[in-house]
Amino acid sequence: IAPTQYTMVRILIKGGKVVNDDCTQEADVYIENGIIQQVGKELMIPGGAKVIDASGKLVLPGGIDTSVHLEENFMNATTADDYYSGTKAALAGGTTMVIGHVLPERNESLLEAYEKCRSSADSKSCCDYALHVGVTWWGPKVLAEMEKLVREKGVNSFQMFMAYKDTFMLRDSELFQALQHCKDIGAVARVHAENGELVAEGAKEALDLGISGPEGIEISRPEELEAEATHRAITIANRAHCPIYLVNVSSMSAGDVVATAKMQGKVVHGETTVAHAVLNGMQYYHQDWAHAAAHVTVPPLRLDPSTPNFLMSLLGNDTLNVVGSDHRPFTIKQKAMGKDDFTKIPHGLPGIQDRMSVIWEKGVIGGKMDENRFVAVTSSNAAKIYNLYPRKGRIIPGADADVVVWDPEGSKTISVDNQLQGGDLNLFEGLRCHGVPLVTISRGRLVYENGMFTCAEGSGKFCPLRTFPDYLYKKMVQREKVTKANLLYFKFIIYLNLVPHVH
Amino acid sequence: IAPTQYTMVRILIKGGKVVNDDCTQEADVYIENGIIQQVGKELMIPGGAKVIDASGKLVLPGGIDTSVHLEENFMNATTADDYYSGTKAALAGGTTMVIGHVLPERNESLLEAYEKCRSSADSKSCCDYALHVGVTWWGPKVLAEMEKLVREKGVNSFQMFMAYKDTFMLRDSELFQALQHCKDIGAVARVHAENGELVAEGAKEALDLGISGPEGIEISRPEELEAEATHRAITIANRAHCPIYLVNVSSMSAGDVVATAKMQGKVVHGETTVAHAVLNGMQYYHQDWAHAAAHVTVPPLRLDPSTPNFLMSLLGNDTLNVVGSDHRPFTIKQKAMGKDDFTKIPHGLPGIQDRMSVIWEKGVIGGKMDENRFVAVTSSNAAKIYNLYPRKGRIIPGADADVVVWDPEGSKTISVDNQLQGGDLNLFEGLRCHGVPLVTISRGRLVYENGMFTCAEGSGKFCPLRTFPDYLYKKMVQREKVTKANLLYFKFIIYLNLVPHVH
Amino acid sequence: IAPTQYTMVRILIKGGKVVNDDCTQEADVYIENGIIQQVGKELMIPGGAKVIDASGKLVLPGGIDTSVHLEENFMNATTADDYYSGTKAALAGGTTMVIGHVLPERNESLLEAYEKCRSSADSKSCCDYALHVGVTWWGPKVLAEMEKLVREKGVNSFQMFMAYKDTFMLRDSELFQALQHCKDIGAVARVHAENGELVAEGAKEALDLGISGPEGIEISRPEELEAEATHRAITIANRAHCPIYLVNVSSMSAGDVVATAKMQGKVVHGETTVAHAVLNGMQYYHQDWAHAAAHVTVPPLRLDPSTPNFLMSLLGNDTLNVVGSDHRPFTIKQKAMGKDDFTKIPHGLPGIQDRMSVIWEKGVIGGKMDENRFVAVTSSNAAKIYNLYPRKGRIIPGADADVVVWDPEGSKTISVDNQLQGGDLNLFEGLRCHGVPLVTISRGRLVYENGMFTCAEGSGKFCPLRTFPDYLYKKMVQREKVTKANLLYFKFIIYLNLVPHVH
Amino acid sequence: IAPTQYTMVRILIKGGKVVNDDCTQEADVYIENGIIQQVGKELMIPGGAKVIDASGKLVLPGGIDTSVHLEENFMNATTADDYYSGTKAALAGGTTMVIGHVLPERNESLLEAYEKCRSSADSKSCCDYALHVGVTWWGPKVLAEMEKLVREKGVNSFQMFMAYKDTFMLRDSELFQALQHCKDIGAVARVHAENGELVAEGAKEALDLGISGPEGIEISRPEELEAEATHRAITIANRAHCPIYLVNVSSMSAGDVVATAKMQGKVVHGETTVAHAVLNGMQYYHQDWAHAAAHVTVPPLRLDPSTPNFLMSLLGNDTLNVVGSDHRPFTIKQKAMGKDDFTKIPHGLPGIQDRMSVIWEKGVIGGKMDENRFVAVTSSNAAKIYNLYPRKGRIIPGADADVVVWDPEGSKTISVDNQLQGGDLNLFEGLRCHGVPLVTISRGRLVYENGMFTCAEGSGKFCPLRTFPDYLYKKMVQREKVTKANLLYFKFIIYLNLVPHVH
Repeated sequence: IAPTQYTMVRILIKGGKVVNDDCTQEADVYIENGIIQQVGKELMIPGGAKVIDASGKLVLPGGIDTSVHLEENFMNATTADDYYSGTKAALAGGTTMVIGHVLPERNESLLEAYEKCRSSADSKSCCDYALHVGVTWWGPKVLAEMEKLVREKGVNSFQMFMAYKDTFMLRDSELFQALQHCKDIGAVARVHAENGELVAEGAKEALDLGISGPEGIEISRPEELEAEATHRAITIANRAHCPIYLVNVSSMSAGDVVATAKMQGKVVHGETTVAHAVLNGMQYYHQDWAHAAAHVTVPPLRLDPSTPNFLMSLLGNDTLNVVGSDHRPFTIKQKAMGKDDFTKIPHGLPGIQDRMSVIWEKGVIGGKMDENRFVAVTSSNAAKIYNLYPRKGRIIPGADADVVVWDPEGSKTISVDNQLQGGDLNLFEGLRCHGVPLVTISRGRLVYENGMFTCAEGSGKFCPLRTFPDYLYKKMVQREKVTKANLLYFKFIIYLNLVPHVH
Repeated sequence: IAPTQYTMVRILIKGGKVVNDDCTQEADVYIENGIIQQVGKELMIPGGAKVIDASGKLVLPGGIDTSVHLEENFMNATTADDYYSGTKAALAGGTTMVIGHVLPERNESLLEAYEKCRSSADSKSCCDYALHVGVTWWGPKVLAEMEKLVREKGVNSFQMFMAYKDTFMLRDSELFQALQHCKDIGAVARVHAENGELVAEGAKEALDLGISGPEGIEISRPEELEAEATHRAITIANRAHCPIYLVNVSSMSAGDVVATAKMQGKVVHGETTVAHAVLNGMQYYHQDWAHAAAHVTVPPLRLDPSTPNFLMSLLGNDTLNVVGSDHRPFTIKQKAMGKDDFTKIPHGLPGIQDRMSVIWEKGVIGGKMDENRFVAVTSSNAAKIYNLYPRKGRIIPGADADVVVWDPEGSKTISVDNQLQGGDLNLFEGLRCHGVPLVTISRGRLVYENGMFTCAEGSGKFCPLRTFPDYLYKKMVQREKVTKANLLYFKFIIYLNLVPHVH
Repeated sequence: IAPTQYTMVRILIKGGKVVNDDCTQEADVYIENGIIQQVGKELMIPGGAKVIDASGKLVLPGGIDTSVHLEENFMNATTADDYYSGTKAALAGGTTMVIGHVLPERNESLLEAYEKCRSSADSKSCCDYALHVGVTWWGPKVLAEMEKLVREKGVNSFQMFMAYKDTFMLRDSELFQALQHCKDIGAVARVHAENGELVAEGAKEALDLGISGPEGIEISRPEELEAEATHRAITIANRAHCPIYLVNVSSMSAGDVVATAKMQGKVVHGETTVAHAVLNGMQYYHQDWAHAAAHVTVPPLRLDPSTPNFLMSLLGNDTLNVVGSDHRPFTIKQKAMGKDDFTKIPHGLPGIQDRMSVIWEKGVIGGKMDENRFVAVTSSNAAKIYNLYPRKGRIIPGADADVVVWDPEGSKTISVDNQLQGGDLNLFEGLRCHGVPLVTISRGRLVYENGMFTCAEGSGKFCPLRTFPDYLYKKMVQREKVTKANLLYFKFIIYLNLVPHVH
Repeated sequence: IAPTQYTMVRILIKGGKVVNDDCTQEADVYIENGIIQQVGKELMIPGGAKVIDASGKLVLPGGIDTSVHLEENFMNATTADDYYSGTKAALAGGTTMVIGHVLPERNESLLEAYEKCRSSADSKSCCDYALHVGVTWWGPKVLAEMEKLVREKGVNSFQMFMAYKDTFMLRDSELFQALQHCKDIGAVARVHAENGELVAEGAKEALDLGISGPEGIEISRPEELEAEATHRAITIANRAHCPIYLVNVSSMSAGDVVATAKMQGKVVHGETTVAHAVLNGMQYYHQDWAHAAAHVTVPPLRLDPSTPNFLMSLLGNDTLNVVGSDHRPFTIKQKAMGKDDFTKIPHGLPGIQDRMSVIWEKGVIGGKMDENRFVAVTSSNAAKIYNLYPRKGRIIPGADADVVVWDPEGSKTISVDNQLQGGDLNLFEGLRCHGVPLVTISRGRLVYENGMFTCAEGSGKFCPLRTFPDYLYKKMVQREKVTKANLLYFKFIIYLNLVPHVH
């Protein structure tokens, strides 16, 4: 009988406004068996349903956090959240699905790394989850394992790094081959774009100049290194006829590169993080070392104070498509490993719990996006890109019942003191958010209501992802056909000698 | 019994793929009483429905043509189509709704012009239609009539002209006031952007140089005049806090201006036409005067041969949102009024019937957009902008049954010889389109099937449009709030003298 | 005997480095009869020359201040400097030539306004000067007088205004005709680019909102109005085949417009002012009304704090070509006419004396330009544009002996307390400049040395300017030829029907 | 007595217009002892001078061709010109100085390669010449040899390659170190920017697709690979605080990257070639294999037909600074080594003789630049960049007497039949040039007149180049100072904890 304590077989959300990424409509939502059964007014439903009064409230598709690091060992530290505490925090914040990272060591089997992660996460996750696998080295074995992960393991996305020289970094020809392979198997190619060779040179130089504090992270890897690598990544992807998905887009100049590529018709998508879209790099100059170090991530927060506003605008105008948390929380003590050398501060920021409310506050209340666009960047676009749409990311009959009742009039103040996520610091400490999740429903289970969290460890499910998402690939496939036809056409022209002498 | 000849009370479309702007899904569609009742697999439906086999076919929301001129007197000529022949052609081409233009003369009452148009169109139109009203002059009376049209007449969009000096053109301050008023009443502000004063100077100059042929249209109003006015229009709209909708975007440089504005977070939407997205201005240099004159429209087709590809890409990447036909057909004889003076050639091109197939051919087959984006630019975006969504522009239960069964494998060759639209010339003569409408259903009536057109004159309905479409206004309204708050904040800063002396 | 007190017939500047806009070379400079006679090492010169030791110093062409308003009545106030005090201050600051403005009232004869100005300036000016005449209204009389000014009066530049609605503003067609006329007579077309209609609307709106303080100047005419008008001005000039010279370029977005036009090959030049290149618009929020009002100019200083750096970079990279002072000093009391209404604060800033040192400090010391580029933007480019080069703007044998000995190691602190220019406030109060003029020589007369000023009132000369400066016109004239040839070529193509049918 | 046959001790060029990069003036030019002694009117000169009548003619600084490959072994072929025939052709075309390339093999001593080249060139060159040395591999020995070349051998420029994987290509960190070293020793850093790794992948792919003809050169290394590498090179140089000089800029997108960098204030210069500025890549589709192969160079000529016009505009507006020939002529037979595999066609084009006339025809006659800008891009800018100015690149007293008398009214038709340069094909065959060199004077020797060439083999001199050219370095050095000061300032801020908490 335990389950009934925290799950509801039948739920009726009454009187709210259903917000999808294309429009908002007054409608009730009826949920049964983990599925949204009906959406509309004056629904005919069986008795015995738990009724949630959503008058004056919004009913949103649950958030999808496309980038979280849980129970991950990274730079000699283990993240302060595992799949249990992390997904609990996610649900409390209105996020009902997370996509975690598997980052194999150099030469480690991708499959084994994947299995290790699965075995732990399956027993802990409270919400649906899926996994990205890092292509952190290159070789025929990696190529084969990518295929196997895609065919048999429910993985449809890989992450490649242009930074992290001597560990994760791929050279341009390796990246090209990895992207070609992604295209062949229909996977989502996530790329972290910073020029790793210059990052390494920059770190050396900064340390040589006596810069050892957290500000070194920005000094050693300024935004021009991101813009450069972004341009390069897009070029390589275009040559490989592979759709590209840039992660952690963090600067105005990188954003401009993405926008230019889209104008040229290239198939490029971009993800930024809530931290980058709200905070700037002046934090690294904070007198309190712990405060400054807590903001160390890569790419770093940017010094130009216009950056967050700009990135939020890019989310608003579809130059960027997704905002994740890139949640990778470390404690002050863990960060302190780099007390004398910023290159030893583990990279990572918390954010899994606050992502939805912070984006609402700065994005929607800030006039950068409306509520529909909010749904797009926090949920629907992710579902489209990772081929889950409209099963997730949309409130319609037949979809998974991942639903949030959102109070646009409510408010709360963020603080580490009342957070569920791990770590001993919150980047948004003291920020008052006008717009909060009241109720979270995960696969039809009412898991969070009025501040009460009721969800059993391991009750979430791994969610296998299918390849060749239409959202990325349909246009791409057709285009490759056209390109090849054009090549033939040119040959024909040569044959006929139709090219005039040109002066 | 006549109606049953051409309408069907119940229709089941079986076995097709339903294409909305966000995704494609295999599903049957059941229609009754003019409404889509069910969408899904294994539907439970009452007997007696006409079954349409859509195996291997696509089921699309009917097209919405946002700019048509029917039964219009313009430049001393009357268009070759009225609301009957025009909407018949639209339906045959897969378009199930058109928005026509009411263009009052200078000092003419907007209301009277509107009523005149209604009285004729209501009795002729075969499909749903709505009306834009031109704000072709300015004064307190216009202001009052705009309000009345919005409140009582189902008009929610107005068109302003920066060209047509001495007739329709508004000066900058008038345009500013018109846009402010649009914002106050929640209307869609359509703007035709060309620098009218320089167009007039250019025409004079061209004629002085002895250029009197159709090529004069492009020589006298080159794309820099469009780009300039586009920049100006966006600036004026931004100052007026009014969302702006640019019509007939025709050039790469104007497209760049739109893209830049979007990057700056401005609320700008753009419409191009099927002719601009496919043809270029070399047509004006065709030896056959009639052929060249047939392409005279404003803004003109552009000389740079990369233009159509570029505009199609902008449709693909959401820099441009809508493609209309701007159907305004004139006969060769009518065009010949300008035989000796290109400024007397009536501006206007046909396109109402071919818009969908031509955009499919050059856009989808050409690899510029996928089928979902095709639906967006031919139908859904228009529905969103004109506040009809999701009643129109989407195939879901509850929506109007404006539906097209589309054969992506079928093909046809466009020719004036077999067209329903008026005029004695087709711009796309000889173009083979791979992708054709098989069946058109208008408000639940089967009006076109296998080349047979069965629809009574006047069976279409005027479709009143509501103000303040969320798609344009929600973000804008919030933003104005933020802006005002910021002004207050600055005043507060002055009071506290927090601004440091700056060097 | 009086003249010998303050002039030197023969001067030898020994041991310095001669800085021209293309290179720096160690050389002595020998001056006689107002002319630079020799430049080189080990010169053979007659005895009796005054020797100036310039070891460790730079020898620069005297500055040319391309925009000064002296003894001008404007917005109900008269500038605090006339041609005597103004040119004295100029010389003390290292500027040896100024170009003043003649601004006729609406319907006032341009010729009469010019003569009035000449009659006063001739008797007062201490250095060479020339005059721009404002084309502040339009009509056949203006057209004729422009021609007369050019042919008979030594005027080669006219200034047109897109702002100042109802007073100076020209409509687009008037501006087009004025620019065509400038081209026909070979004049320099200076354009002040702000959208005057929207400025007027903005002022109304700001006052309505209760904004009456100096900050209203920026709120009512934000930079988008400048960027818009700049785009428009360039477009109109391009259509008129007229080189265009934009004045008071004040914002990043206007700078971007200029850069884009140059990339397209258009003949565009730009002038900014020392105030815009150094200060930002936060000054308008200063608690002290007088301080804030002292910064009121048009276009206003810009709120974005990155603006001055950006404009200085544009001077460095030749996107902008000239930096003037736009010196138009008013007293605190004069500014106070607008105490309750910012639109009544007379527009104008001082700067004639400090321009050279301030640009050196922020430009050269700031790493934005080297000493040669400094000479280019403060002197040589002006000489080229106004057709005085290389008689002025270059230190070579045969040139006018307008020379400054500059101490790159010296420094001084700017203060109203020790300035020669008029007004009771200095915008750069307290700024320490590293780089100061030690000696100023005007037409061979030693007029300023070691802080001592020795120059008789009226000893400067009016300097007639010739038309068709090569720097602006040579390329333009050739290009017009090519354009016309291309038109003919196209006609030929039509004749031969070489244009293929295009799909 | 032989020398008097072909040299003149004293020359007076009378009645011409002297064209420098800043202005044009009527003046006579008197030359003696290899030096320009006087420039002016009514010169006082000793008797016995050879008088050249230049009435109606222009007198230009001799061209400087900044990139020539003479007597070079490359891709298994030896160029069809050595320093004798090559410099003869240069002089006949109006070029009086060339800078050749030394391209060491991987691991070959830079010094030895340099000496080898010198020993041959010294005895053959007919005009002044200097040498670039390729940094074609990286290591401590290279670093040391660069320093020695700079200190002792008169080399001040090095060329680095981002293409030519497995032979010349440097990795990013190597390039960074090479650029840092260039900065430390004050050298000019020339960079060939194409992504070598992707070029290699592209070649593989093209051959796999069966594309083996000359068109493969463009298909395998399209312009996006150049734009990418250009962006990367500029980024790396900026991080190294090193001025960068991009060679063979060949595409619109690379040009845009350069322009953007300049707008950001970066110290970037660019060189294109006469072939890229005039021809496009449709040549690769010519039916005649030999014709197509003759155009094979890297980066390749570009397919977009607007490219040459665009590049010429960039030369006109100073986005690009120099146009060389990159002369590397191969015979049809040599090219035929790649008959079955385009990757084996030796890269290289002729152009040393025709560069000046072709740029005049397409640039000056074409309305893209005036005669002064022509001098800048063919001569003066090169002199400034390579630290020869104003000894070369300018007609002033004291400068080297490298002078060309140019007939702007003359014309000639280019043909392989009457060329002095080697090879059996001319890319501009049949092009009629309006503007030809009549007389060429090299270091005071009259070497070419009326089609007669009179110059002894080996009469040219090696011209050592000094480091730290002001034109590149003065601003850069100051800027590095400022940057370091800013870092200190930020640290100070941290110390004072002046950074507010930011939300």
